[in-house]
Amino acid sequence: MNHHDHFKRSPCAVANSLDIVGDKWSLLVVRDLLQGKCTYGDLAKSPERIPTNILAERLRRLESAGIVTSTPYQAHPTRYAYSLTPKGRDLGDVLSAFVRWGKRYIPGTVALKRGPTNAETDVASASFRRARPGYAK
Amino acid sequence: MNHHDHFKRSPCAVANSLDIVGDKWSLLVVRDLLQGKCTYGDLAKSPERIPTNILAERLRRLESAGIVTSTPYQAHPTRYAYSLTPKGRDLGDVLSAFVRWGKRYIPGTVALKRGPTNAETDVASASFRRARPGYAK
Repeated sequence: MNHHDHFKRSPCAVANSLDIVGDKWSLLVVRDLLQGKCTYGDLAKSPERIPTNILAERLRRLESAGIVTSTPYQAHPTRYAYSLTPKGRDLGDVLSAFVRWGKRYIPGTVALKRGPTNAETDVASASFRRARPGYAK
Repeated sequence: MNHHDHFKRSPCAVANSLDIVGDKWSLLVVRDLLQGKCTYGDLAKSPERIPTNILAERLRRLESAGIVTSTPYQAHPTRYAYSLTPKGRDLGDVLSAFVRWGKRYIPGTVALKRGPTNAETDVASASFRRARPGYAK
């Protein structure tokens, strides 16, 4: 039996991970969920202004991949709260590696706030918000 | 001055990193270069069978981003040897994070060999090669 048959491209852990989150938006949605955003409206107000059709499609794909779960919190119309599963939260390590690489090699980039316990990224997040006064509106 | 003006989408280190390598192929090319592959022909024989037009385009983009350098090693026709810059080699941390996440959450995936000093990934690489006897041809 050819082991390769089970996988879309190869058994490589990186290739299979990229088949799920290898695009310009998925990890930004994960980033925002790690920051504590949980509604579609909050996620749509990302600093990158994610197009709403892309946001909806990515949330569906991340949910079907077991990275995100959704729970209805309102009826008529139904609205959902989104959160990360343990599988999704563990993508935080990938995000941290991208933050380190980006800050080192792309001048002026900053880490967005990831949680209340990380002083360094809190500071970076605060300076980011000051730089974009329109972000919180 | 709006800090955001300097960046394509936002000052986020993750977003700017994804603007460079946020796709399904770029990090696989970096993976293969980290493994020591250096010619176009070797890179084209990736286990994922990267289409040659995509490989050529990604090498150009990675070179313009300062991640890859090319050096001619043959004339008539000119052929180039590709290698990673320090900026490119440091993407190894991102690859390692993807390997850990993929192996943990995508059953059956393995780490490809990253270098002669890493025993764990050497073993994973050996089992990967056994599973795909056609890979080395």
